[in-house]
Amino acid sequence: MLAGPEAAMSALATAEARIAEARIIEGGKAVRLTWGDGGAARFHAIWLRDNALDPETRASGNGQRLIAIADVPDDITIAAARLTEAGGLALRLMPEGKEIVFAADWLGARVYDRPARNRAGWTDNSLIRWDRRLGAELPGGGYEEIRSSRQALGRWLASVRRYGFATMSGLPRRSGALLEVAELFGYVRETNYGRWFEVRAEVNPSNLAFTNLGLQAHTDNPYRDPVPTLQILACLENDVEGGESIVVDGFKAAERLQEEMPEGFELLSRHAARFEYAGAEGVRLKAKRPMIELGPDGELIAIRLNSRSAAPFTDIPYDRMQAYYRAYRRFSALIADSTLEVRFRLQPGELFIVDNTRVLHARTPYSGAGRRWLQGCYPDKDGLLSTLAAIEAEGGAG
Amino acid sequence: MLAGPEAAMSALATAEARIAEARIIEGGKAVRLTWGDGGAARFHAIWLRDNALDPETRASGNGQRLIAIADVPDDITIAAARLTEAGGLALRLMPEGKEIVFAADWLGARVYDRPARNRAGWTDNSLIRWDRRLGAELPGGGYEEIRSSRQALGRWLASVRRYGFATMSGLPRRSGALLEVAELFGYVRETNYGRWFEVRAEVNPSNLAFTNLGLQAHTDNPYRDPVPTLQILACLENDVEGGESIVVDGFKAAERLQEEMPEGFELLSRHAARFEYAGAEGVRLKAKRPMIELGPDGELIAIRLNSRSAAPFTDIPYDRMQAYYRAYRRFSALIADSTLEVRFRLQPGELFIVDNTRVLHARTPYSGAGRRWLQGCYPDKDGLLSTLAAIEAEGGAG
Repeated sequence: MLAGPEAAMSALATAEARIAEARIIEGGKAVRLTWGDGGAARFHAIWLRDNALDPETRASGNGQRLIAIADVPDDITIAAARLTEAGGLALRLMPEGKEIVFAADWLGARVYDRPARNRAGWTDNSLIRWDRRLGAELPGGGYEEIRSSRQALGRWLASVRRYGFATMSGLPRRSGALLEVAELFGYVRETNYGRWFEVRAEVNPSNLAFTNLGLQAHTDNPYRDPVPTLQILACLENDVEGGESIVVDGFKAAERLQEEMPEGFELLSRHAARFEYAGAEGVRLKAKRPMIELGPDGELIAIRLNSRSAAPFTDIPYDRMQAYYRAYRRFSALIADSTLEVRFRLQPGELFIVDNTRVLHARTPYSGAGRRWLQGCYPDKDGLLSTLAAIEAEGGAG
Repeated sequence: MLAGPEAAMSALATAEARIAEARIIEGGKAVRLTWGDGGAARFHAIWLRDNALDPETRASGNGQRLIAIADVPDDITIAAARLTEAGGLALRLMPEGKEIVFAADWLGARVYDRPARNRAGWTDNSLIRWDRRLGAELPGGGYEEIRSSRQALGRWLASVRRYGFATMSGLPRRSGALLEVAELFGYVRETNYGRWFEVRAEVNPSNLAFTNLGLQAHTDNPYRDPVPTLQILACLENDVEGGESIVVDGFKAAERLQEEMPEGFELLSRHAARFEYAGAEGVRLKAKRPMIELGPDGELIAIRLNSRSAAPFTDIPYDRMQAYYRAYRRFSALIADSTLEVRFRLQPGELFIVDNTRVLHARTPYSGAGRRWLQGCYPDKDGLLSTLAAIEAEGGAG
């Protein structure tokens, strides 16, 4: 049985994590390793050479690779393989005659000799899909603690990675405070809406978000490519009737669609929708992307849904359009299903963050009496995940 | 014969652009239109209703849709279809009893009843793939003209859309001038490298870009998701030996790969590579994306290639890894092929811009004598294409 990376990783804590046997196979084109716990995996000579960790292959300071694939001989083979005293792997590669060494745990964490994932719509184990029961205890934290403790920051960021959603309380009640939150982990992406934008009822609004109408659950700016990957919405005032916030896990809704209408899931992922926005002078944003985006290996990587900015779909063949609309209708209904909705009321000094590639947000309509004033901005997810990975590497977060 | 959108569009200039006949088909689920030039296309009732242009369906100011798909009856049919005096289409839809009207050219530009594109790796007609012959006359313009003429700006932006590359001369020779160029069309994305960054030889560099080593043709930051979509590199000083700039059309290289090694094109597009960068404290960027990224309909949408930041590939099945490496080696060789390289020397006061999802850039090594000082930044492509579309809608650009 070939071990998956998790199996190999979990074995690291034990003494069985050492490599017990290394056998050259395929005439030197690969090596088969057996770990002390019985797990096994094959690695190719070319993969091992390309990923060698010696200072001539990798810059010691920044870890960048110093060789290109053209520098690796095409006819590379493993001439000798032996185990190191620490239970790692030492190899001699021909024709270079180069000796390279790997630790057992480094290889165990990078096993690629394992069954392929076949089911479209899979996601990494670190993501937890959720429904309205998440509302019983919203993932979140307090600004002061998160700002002053790297561990608390790590926990909060890990919630965003896991759920695509988190709240924060105890913010300074001043305009622009949301930017200080974004600066804790990354960078805000400026757009035609500015570095941040006001969300309150406007006269002659350029966007329906700037009215007191209810907004159906949606992802922001699907007409933008790249789409905003995160959104923060922070509350400065909210004493209107209504104006509640709703979040929905689009990955959970996609899972339900796949269960009850597999051909609908396929239609929304195999064909691109179109989105556009031309609501302000000099702005004509357009994008062509699927509502359910999969990576080449079927990994679910993004959801886009926004009836306000959906443009005429012109990339679905005629004989599938009717079925495409059925799938779109069902997916929209699942997203509006109350069993998936987490509903809460933002108070002044509170914010929420969503992964805009996964979690949809909505608001209920509100009355003109009283005031509702939110501010929003779009930080990017690369910075958030990078900061979280750095904190985890320091041994922080959970 | 069903008319493609281009055929319908080009017919618009003539009197034959009027709709000549509208026939209800499929029991009212669709209508078949014949234009005066003989082109024909079918449209579904649900598609027509969803895309109605009346002020109850679309906000008159910003054009956003005011209805959701749930508001459209599931059993919608076309009860009556007639031609308007202007040669457009008027429909009565049941059970709503709603009357909607479309202009002939609006429908002609949105035909979806056409043969599907089957070949993986296609791109829009507005893109032109190029090789080293583009070097005979680099697409570009002068800063003063582009800044002062909206038409000149439109022409320059259209070059970037078409070739994924353009140059600009006559820039003010002051630090940060590149941001003024970005502001002409969009917004710069701030990253861990700042809003812009210095590219010159550093002591203890955090990135090999900041040395005097040659850099193989690469796309920037493939370890970032979303990846930077544009890069500007502006020159402030360059009196070293060497230090020439090279650009390569990654879409052209992908086309060559597909021609000579179709299975290699498939491997690089069907499996995700991994990239990472952890060269500075607190930064651990990682991404999992294919080297050749296709949309769900096979459209070529992005190239990622960077040997320095390629991480161990762990998402290619064991039995395809050897072939994957062969494809990667060949793709890298094609990108380094001199028949694809456009080579030039940036002078102080000049810059170039690349579409970082398409065009790779490189530099030749340079000697320590003299100085080479460039500044770089990452604007986003959504803003560029939006500004270009707005200029085109005003009747500018070419």
